[in-house]
Amino acid sequence: MTGSILGERFVVVSFGESHGPAIGAVVDGCPAGLPLAREDIQREVDLRKPADPTASTARAERDEVKLLSGVYRGYTTGAPIAMLVENRDVDSSWYLANAMKPRPGHADYPAWVKYRGFNDPRGGGRFSGRITVGFVMAGAVAKKLLSYTLGAEILAYTAQVGRVKAEPPAVGLRELRRIVYSNSMRAPDSRAAREMRRLVAEARAGGDSIGSVVECVVEGLPPGLGEPVFSSLESDLSKALFSIPGVKGVEFGAGFKLAEMHGSESNDQYTIRGGRVVTVTNNCGGVLGGLSTGGLVVFRAVLKPPSSIAKPQMTVDLKSMSTAEIKVAGRHDACLAPRAAPVVEAVTAIVLADHAIRAGLIPPVLGEAYARAQK
Amino acid sequence: MTGSILGERFVVVSFGESHGPAIGAVVDGCPAGLPLAREDIQREVDLRKPADPTASTARAERDEVKLLSGVYRGYTTGAPIAMLVENRDVDSSWYLANAMKPRPGHADYPAWVKYRGFNDPRGGGRFSGRITVGFVMAGAVAKKLLSYTLGAEILAYTAQVGRVKAEPPAVGLRELRRIVYSNSMRAPDSRAAREMRRLVAEARAGGDSIGSVVECVVEGLPPGLGEPVFSSLESDLSKALFSIPGVKGVEFGAGFKLAEMHGSESNDQYTIRGGRVVTVTNNCGGVLGGLSTGGLVVFRAVLKPPSSIAKPQMTVDLKSMSTAEIKVAGRHDACLAPRAAPVVEAVTAIVLADHAIRAGLIPPVLGEAYARAQK
Amino acid sequence: MTGSILGERFVVVSFGESHGPAIGAVVDGCPAGLPLAREDIQREVDLRKPADPTASTARAERDEVKLLSGVYRGYTTGAPIAMLVENRDVDSSWYLANAMKPRPGHADYPAWVKYRGFNDPRGGGRFSGRITVGFVMAGAVAKKLLSYTLGAEILAYTAQVGRVKAEPPAVGLRELRRIVYSNSMRAPDSRAAREMRRLVAEARAGGDSIGSVVECVVEGLPPGLGEPVFSSLESDLSKALFSIPGVKGVEFGAGFKLAEMHGSESNDQYTIRGGRVVTVTNNCGGVLGGLSTGGLVVFRAVLKPPSSIAKPQMTVDLKSMSTAEIKVAGRHDACLAPRAAPVVEAVTAIVLADHAIRAGLIPPVLGEAYARAQK
Amino acid sequence: MTGSILGERFVVVSFGESHGPAIGAVVDGCPAGLPLAREDIQREVDLRKPADPTASTARAERDEVKLLSGVYRGYTTGAPIAMLVENRDVDSSWYLANAMKPRPGHADYPAWVKYRGFNDPRGGGRFSGRITVGFVMAGAVAKKLLSYTLGAEILAYTAQVGRVKAEPPAVGLRELRRIVYSNSMRAPDSRAAREMRRLVAEARAGGDSIGSVVECVVEGLPPGLGEPVFSSLESDLSKALFSIPGVKGVEFGAGFKLAEMHGSESNDQYTIRGGRVVTVTNNCGGVLGGLSTGGLVVFRAVLKPPSSIAKPQMTVDLKSMSTAEIKVAGRHDACLAPRAAPVVEAVTAIVLADHAIRAGLIPPVLGEAYARAQK
Repeated sequence: MTGSILGERFVVVSFGESHGPAIGAVVDGCPAGLPLAREDIQREVDLRKPADPTASTARAERDEVKLLSGVYRGYTTGAPIAMLVENRDVDSSWYLANAMKPRPGHADYPAWVKYRGFNDPRGGGRFSGRITVGFVMAGAVAKKLLSYTLGAEILAYTAQVGRVKAEPPAVGLRELRRIVYSNSMRAPDSRAAREMRRLVAEARAGGDSIGSVVECVVEGLPPGLGEPVFSSLESDLSKALFSIPGVKGVEFGAGFKLAEMHGSESNDQYTIRGGRVVTVTNNCGGVLGGLSTGGLVVFRAVLKPPSSIAKPQMTVDLKSMSTAEIKVAGRHDACLAPRAAPVVEAVTAIVLADHAIRAGLIPPVLGEAYARAQK
Repeated sequence: MTGSILGERFVVVSFGESHGPAIGAVVDGCPAGLPLAREDIQREVDLRKPADPTASTARAERDEVKLLSGVYRGYTTGAPIAMLVENRDVDSSWYLANAMKPRPGHADYPAWVKYRGFNDPRGGGRFSGRITVGFVMAGAVAKKLLSYTLGAEILAYTAQVGRVKAEPPAVGLRELRRIVYSNSMRAPDSRAAREMRRLVAEARAGGDSIGSVVECVVEGLPPGLGEPVFSSLESDLSKALFSIPGVKGVEFGAGFKLAEMHGSESNDQYTIRGGRVVTVTNNCGGVLGGLSTGGLVVFRAVLKPPSSIAKPQMTVDLKSMSTAEIKVAGRHDACLAPRAAPVVEAVTAIVLADHAIRAGLIPPVLGEAYARAQK
Repeated sequence: MTGSILGERFVVVSFGESHGPAIGAVVDGCPAGLPLAREDIQREVDLRKPADPTASTARAERDEVKLLSGVYRGYTTGAPIAMLVENRDVDSSWYLANAMKPRPGHADYPAWVKYRGFNDPRGGGRFSGRITVGFVMAGAVAKKLLSYTLGAEILAYTAQVGRVKAEPPAVGLRELRRIVYSNSMRAPDSRAAREMRRLVAEARAGGDSIGSVVECVVEGLPPGLGEPVFSSLESDLSKALFSIPGVKGVEFGAGFKLAEMHGSESNDQYTIRGGRVVTVTNNCGGVLGGLSTGGLVVFRAVLKPPSSIAKPQMTVDLKSMSTAEIKVAGRHDACLAPRAAPVVEAVTAIVLADHAIRAGLIPPVLGEAYARAQK
Repeated sequence: MTGSILGERFVVVSFGESHGPAIGAVVDGCPAGLPLAREDIQREVDLRKPADPTASTARAERDEVKLLSGVYRGYTTGAPIAMLVENRDVDSSWYLANAMKPRPGHADYPAWVKYRGFNDPRGGGRFSGRITVGFVMAGAVAKKLLSYTLGAEILAYTAQVGRVKAEPPAVGLRELRRIVYSNSMRAPDSRAAREMRRLVAEARAGGDSIGSVVECVVEGLPPGLGEPVFSSLESDLSKALFSIPGVKGVEFGAGFKLAEMHGSESNDQYTIRGGRVVTVTNNCGGVLGGLSTGGLVVFRAVLKPPSSIAKPQMTVDLKSMSTAEIKVAGRHDACLAPRAAPVVEAVTAIVLADHAIRAGLIPPVLGEAYARAQK
């Protein structure tokens, strides 16, 4: 399969470039009988829009979702679901003027080598974060499916910006979501959110950007989801997460801290609660042997500081093969986590929907669920 | 595709269980014309054998590789290459006696739920680290291919055990490999190796185990390798790495440290050296936008402390649904990195070979290379 | 992978329903550097339009191609190419009135069972021949690619309608194409075309339809194209051909006549012509062991009589589970071959482009070809 | 995916060459909990052995199946099932002496071009009909699965040899199977079998071979199996059938006869029998729109006369690039249908098992069926 296609049974095809006519996604394999409206998708796309001019790009896209196929009378039909948003607020002048000077930290240079100059350089083209609006559209379908069939819910939030770490309160996912969406940093901790915002504002003011971490929590997965060996839950989630521009690391549960732990400490021992087998701790992040344990699935992705910064940087002019200076103009986020969080949710939903279908947890037609919904 | 199959054009099929008749791998898509002997594969398999009784399992497998197809007169034919080793030193008694008591930290419980008890529990069955001998066999083919065609070399080593971190000297990959294979911890730093060894010995003596980190370095990749979007180099490498039992996190370049950095610091600026475009730093780990930059590809995987420990742990008896105590007997590694390092090399080689073929860097038949080799 | 996605390296995603907002296709994996304009695609789509009111549907679609991504400054970029046409001339009333009476010969009944009524019934929905406009759009890209890189050309034509068989003259492909496109039956024999036209007119006048055969010839493929075992050229071509609505049989070379032949007669013996190894006959249809021989690739697909006929037929009412009569109204073709021929060309091009890329015959970037083209 | 791998959820990996150490198959994706013994597979492999020295090769292989993984205590575990038979009765001398003279009708010439001489030429290597023993092993698992879960049964038989066509009596599949296996031609008509046998004996006596047709019937499939568009039942069955060496055509139902029919004649009208919707005729071969109708699935594959004949034929010497004569020695079948019939059954079972899993008709774990089987 080719690089713009993800999944086995719930498959997402991504298309579009930053400054091309449209960004889109096709979902093939969504079961028939899922209630789905254009608004379900629009709502998720809107969450990805910049919440805060401090943190984010000034590019103002309406991002009105068009639903082209696969839905009939308010239910999915089992046919591919094609969706797109048009690119309207496009200004390519800076990119065209600087097409031969690769921006440090961007894909410009390796893409130029790979495609021998045929790739679309405007706004980073196919390598722009803008394409994640397609992930979000596909993810909206996946989220609806997981929620409707398994009752599973996904929440991703900004866990860290610079050295500021959020401390999420011990509340349910619903309440946590409320907190997250009450601040523009999408942090599960209002106090930390304020500090994060300050760091981002500082970075932006200095013509700079700052790194961050998104944490994601999934509630409601039954035990045993995932496929050994190469299609473990961790394998497939990390594959999808690393396709989000800017992600440079992924860890589950205690993650890299496990290097310093002993087995007697890190092993999550079992007990019985409410008649169900549960682990006392969750250092494994809800995944053992690549399979869900039935506990919360928890993982983190680190996002590098956005590469587009106003400060002057050293680069090369590929035409003259001499060194050159570059100041990246254009409209850019100064910190990725706040807008990456919905994208992390989206790709997580896509991978989990795919696995739930593979595992037979979601049938190809939601007939009975539909019947119940009709009552 | 199903869970035991990895790759698109250089495809690896894994089969076998810890205590079944054999562990094997089939490689489909290896170009014709690669010089390959049984010994090339045996050599890599031997590197995976326990080097140190302190760190590792007492299970003594000869692991004699059988090459069943795909090679004729010393060259690959383009047909699938099937390889296997037999399991001989097998003792399943403990597992059969404890099949209903899931070992904390192992896949036992979710696997039992997923397969409703049909999975083979002996030695962890399909979820055992033992299956990685198949990865190593397939990886041996991939390594040979990468080396023969691109001159690319891969080295993985123990970078950390507990709080002890190795400090690799600034030497070439060949010299580094010599150091790594001169100590049983597979560390690129002899002094750290001794401390690591002590930590592992202590853990083992206490009926415990300890966590670790493997770092991997790839030299010799041209710029532009990788496929956007979902098949970025990071996506496909992490997918493969997370299929190694015990891996709980993967990071490229500066990895999670990027959260605390500014863009002006993390961006790898370009310059020209020896007529080639290079980055001055390598915080991106040799990958930008999912494509290789032409610099060293560097990443780390954290390996949890081995879950099989002698210390008593709390679990549940799935038959009676009551809590129970378990002491894991059997023969186990007390630290994963030393034996995981060759496995990390193997899966890295598999992914890179796949990508190099996809990118047209390795042709389907190595005719000309062969011709040159004949001179 | 799911059912609306075809191919490995040149991948086509089909979406859309007969009476939905749009019909489209996404091509992922097209090499960068191919000159491609919207008009290249429009031209092929126009060939699929009804040429003759006698043979074809009265549905009048403008079918104006929109090119949404993957092309920049007249060249493909290596990114996915998304294309669509809108459905405008839609009248769903008959289908809605008869949704519970499956039309004999159509997918209505099994689709209704499979999707439990959630599928879009309007115009056959996802099962309509209308979706082949997406195949043609994707095929246009594939044809251009094959022609530009290998100089390979594909021609499909109406070989048989009822008992009337065309006898193509012994001329080159270019001249044959001229004949084919000079008559509305798309037959390579003007006299047969007239007889075919009469048969179709008779069938239509009687409220009936008639069967046909499309033959396809490919010129310019080098020997050795195809992949053993399951991805033989015949395997992959037939898979694609059987996805064209109405195809019920596929045969290569002498096809079903081989049952009555002896090996001494059917074997294509070799000789040397112009310094090249060629076969004296071509009973194998240019494919041996699933690989191209270097000769003309020749195959035929039988297309059943269109299922939508005005004559009354017996069916069942799925609501009352009683027998019922049905007369299919709406606008339909009376014979499939003339409009199926361009679709056969399209899917053939898609499969061959995929195989040529897999075989390394077409590189991921057409840099050098491009350079030559610029001179 | 690569050429030796078939399927999406029930995946078959084929490996081995005619004169290599072994022929094998790996099945990944077989649900856990299927009762399976080595003998189930051996039985099917034995059916593929030559039944009649008149029709078939003198190569005498014991073909003792080794089952290497995926089965524990008599049930499948959900892990990959690896199986192999060793090649023992091998004589490569003729092939080595004639490696540069491609046999007419064989893959020798295109394979030599494709692999630039690296392919294994002994016995046709990877292109030998011998590899179908791997298909049969995998098919044995698929058949057991279909029978155990859906009660579906598959029967393939010799429908035609030369101009002699069998006329199967109107009896059930079980009785038909008895007739088929009571004659060495595997024909469903004893009288035709005798004539077929005479034709084959004549051909063999004259140093020649003869063509044939295998017909296959599947009973017990529910309506709605199959996936639109590119994964229609016909698409996937034909893909698998064309991977059987010698198949040059595939048709469903009335097949190529549909070219001469009118829609009013070919459309299978619906009625109700025993409370179920059924078609009165079955010209569609049990498949409409790529989905099963619930009726018998019926298709035919034409097998060319075996290419290995003793009569002298013209070929070329690839070393000297001059014409040459060849008389194919070795041990060969004079007619393919009798031994191809079990292979047709095998690949049919593989494709149907894959589709039944994709459609959710067969769950990933056969827990309840198992529970019932335990009573």
